Amino acid sequence: MSDTQETKQFVEDLADQGDDFSRWYIEVVRKAQLADYAPVRGCMVIRPYGYAMWENMQRLLDARIKATGHQNAYFPLLIPESLLQLEAEHVEGFAPQVAWVTQGGNDVLEERLAIRPTSEAIIGRMYSRWIESYRDLPILLNQWCNVMRWEKVTRLFLRTTEFLWQEGHTAHATAAECQEEVLRMLEVYRDFAETDLAIPVHAGRKSESEKFAGAEMTYCIEALMRDGKALQAGTSHNLGQHFARVFDITFQDEQGKRQHVHQTSWGVTTRLIGAIIMTHGDDQGLKLPPRVAPVQAVVVPIWRKDEERAAVKEFIGRVTAALAGRVRLLVDDREQYTPGWKYNEHELRGVPVRLEVGPKDVAKGAVMSVRRDTRVKESIALDQLPERLPALLDDIQRALFEAAKAYRDENTAIASTVQELEAHFASRRGFVAVPWDGSAAFEAEVKEKTGATLRCVPLDQTPWKGLARAGQDVALFARAY
Amino acid sequence: MSDTQETKQFVEDLADQGDDFSRWYIEVVRKAQLADYAPVRGCMVIRPYGYAMWENMQRLLDARIKATGHQNAYFPLLIPESLLQLEAEHVEGFAPQVAWVTQGGNDVLEERLAIRPTSEAIIGRMYSRWIESYRDLPILLNQWCNVMRWEKVTRLFLRTTEFLWQEGHTAHATAAECQEEVLRMLEVYRDFAETDLAIPVHAGRKSESEKFAGAEMTYCIEALMRDGKALQAGTSHNLGQHFARVFDITFQDEQGKRQHVHQTSWGVTTRLIGAIIMTHGDDQGLKLPPRVAPVQAVVVPIWRKDEERAAVKEFIGRVTAALAGRVRLLVDDREQYTPGWKYNEHELRGVPVRLEVGPKDVAKGAVMSVRRDTRVKESIALDQLPERLPALLDDIQRALFEAAKAYRDENTAIASTVQELEAHFASRRGFVAVPWDGSAAFEAEVKEKTGATLRCVPLDQTPWKGLARAGQDVALFARAY
Repeated sequence: MSDTQETKQFVEDLADQGDDFSRWYIEVVRKAQLADYAPVRGCMVIRPYGYAMWENMQRLLDARIKATGHQNAYFPLLIPESLLQLEAEHVEGFAPQVAWVTQGGNDVLEERLAIRPTSEAIIGRMYSRWIESYRDLPILLNQWCNVMRWEKVTRLFLRTTEFLWQEGHTAHATAAECQEEVLRMLEVYRDFAETDLAIPVHAGRKSESEKFAGAEMTYCIEALMRDGKALQAGTSHNLGQHFARVFDITFQDEQGKRQHVHQTSWGVTTRLIGAIIMTHGDDQGLKLPPRVAPVQAVVVPIWRKDEERAAVKEFIGRVTAALAGRVRLLVDDREQYTPGWKYNEHELRGVPVRLEVGPKDVAKGAVMSVRRDTRVKESIALDQLPERLPALLDDIQRALFEAAKAYRDENTAIASTVQELEAHFASRRGFVAVPWDGSAAFEAEVKEKTGATLRCVPLDQTPWKGLARAGQDVALFARAY
Repeated sequence: MSDTQETKQFVEDLADQGDDFSRWYIEVVRKAQLADYAPVRGCMVIRPYGYAMWENMQRLLDARIKATGHQNAYFPLLIPESLLQLEAEHVEGFAPQVAWVTQGGNDVLEERLAIRPTSEAIIGRMYSRWIESYRDLPILLNQWCNVMRWEKVTRLFLRTTEFLWQEGHTAHATAAECQEEVLRMLEVYRDFAETDLAIPVHAGRKSESEKFAGAEMTYCIEALMRDGKALQAGTSHNLGQHFARVFDITFQDEQGKRQHVHQTSWGVTTRLIGAIIMTHGDDQGLKLPPRVAPVQAVVVPIWRKDEERAAVKEFIGRVTAALAGRVRLLVDDREQYTPGWKYNEHELRGVPVRLEVGPKDVAKGAVMSVRRDTRVKESIALDQLPERLPALLDDIQRALFEAAKAYRDENTAIASTVQELEAHFASRRGFVAVPWDGSAAFEAEVKEKTGATLRCVPLDQTPWKGLARAGQDVALFARAY
């Protein structure tokens, strides 16, 4: 099969985003070998390429979580039903989604055990044991783990029965410190999403109907995907004293008085991998932000005659030596594929930069770099490479963010009434900013007539100054994942 | 309460190893805040100090796993019963220990789902989909995750219903490559245990009765705890083609012939934290190997008069600046505890080095270092600290290993007959090396008469040269965890 035929077939296999975004999404996830369906309903296998991205994301976010004073810990997978039932709103919200263990070995259990859908209940029980005095506060813990929610409709990364996440759980002496923590972690998420994942987000608060089951207030970051649908990318909850009351989490304050603690919880999940795919990808496949890309640059050797081969190989040895420890590099020296085939595969897999090395490049003492995002080519001399390639990766990181932000801003409209929202969503998607009277009735009417939900009330209202009357805020509506 | 009273009380609370090793173990785990009991039978909470140790262990072992060519991935928590049942020995070995999910949300499931006790079955199913040709081999994957085994008797870290581990799963074209991988990973474990955890181990093969359910051959590393009982610290299995046959994992070889793959699996768990505690600890508490200690050195400020306080504090600022990025340092500036109390607490928690900083030290421009293992004191000038402290930590790491090895060797005897083994175990513990005829009958007789089991047949037989007749090997017997 010729190079052209191969290339054609490879690209033809991938659906166009414009024709069928959902099909494009699933195909790109599976062809890029990010994930695969598992032989268990609604579960996925995260393949090495997808997991390496998650590891990079974990490393970057974990450093931010630790830099803000938190420590990691690990709490049990299973939660006794009686414990889960203590907080009424919480159990009502999660019970329909719980997978239950009813047998251990050959014995039927006396009490059902929930596979954790989230860990407020079990952590609350431990906090009630550990906290005695104001000196024990704040407790600032985080855990990286798997959780399970029995979803009816699932989609790789976006909504799976089992997923991976981090969940932070903190306890504070005062309501003010608690709220400060909630907003601190929201800002950590915003900065992580925008700086490391190149995903522009709106940080805001949720309405009553969209808040976490058991929380006093939920804050979130919301992103816009390339099909115009919104995606909740992270949440930070102010739990107030709800859990402290039912789990009896109290401390003796400096005056010797017993008080309930104030708590937060906050999390992001493997869903963010779906957000990266749908924020940056195009008809040729993924475009991965360099900071989290498992492979930041792929080297493709090119030769036609055997005598060229040794020289190309030797030069590539010098390229890898020059870049060692600076760039996550892959040399694709598979012999069964043509360079053209490799170009397409690595474009599909979203590798930010391709470095072509052929006899002409070797003669010049340079490599030909090709950006995944813009296809711009640039010959880079070997001795410039250790400086130039990291700078190029920084450019790409910035460019991906700017492109996504431009798309998001182009797809953000304004409206003043339900009628205007209806007119908008009849033919378009994206975010619509609307003055909101704070009523659930307005939300419900919009949802019924347009399918759009209130994504958040942005903390930063300045872009919509003057749109809402005094005392009211603007809310963002969108159809959402 | 005076300093002396406090100290006394703190130490009195901890059982002596010689009086009741089991009580000492549980008390040290809980007082050092490594772990706590969870409100679910047999499960534990790994607290920040214990989890930080696990994170250090993960980082060091993960680097070794990746350096030997493996990639991480993630497979589902739940395994359909029908899948688990395919390999007969495997299901027979694990079925009595499985926790079963039988309900999802409000629905009763048609098929029970096992919480993974290990992942051969689900990974086997995926490998049968992914592997087509010899070009897809070897597959070298690893996953870090939680697993569950419904144990009747549990003990924090050593045997818990849920535990954390890594499990490697590889597939190869030939039996020779497969066996090479099994021994490569056994050597990775040996080196990790000895170099990073300072735990001397015997690497060897298991007998038929002790091998992994479904394996052709199991290899292990075996350590000796300070109560004279052995502990299996890691295993590496040659699965042969057992799983490949039942899961239909085949590839087309270079000649176009279809063949079954050859597989390995290998794992170590949070049990290793228990091994560290029981290899190095003493009546004062933990002694943590510097390479995995969450805190490598703790700075304790000492002052009596208020005017000394500022100078001590300022000097400690210079100490932390000098050591930044070189040593995991904690400054214990809690005001509610005396220096004496802090000394005891950090000894209990096994911090390798204490740095005392009082007015006299400040006057000398030095800190007083105290080793946890030998109590040896040494005044170190501030400008020497960045060189001397890391060297001191290396010394401690080596000394812990040497001390453990000396203990292990002193507690390794030899015997020639079952009678001699009986005589040994009537009054002593430790390893006993015995020439083994390879029969299960011999093993069974020893177990019945002494309670000791065959821990392994060491790969390196040189320490017992001449003990076994030609063609036979020496096996190590011990009572074990």
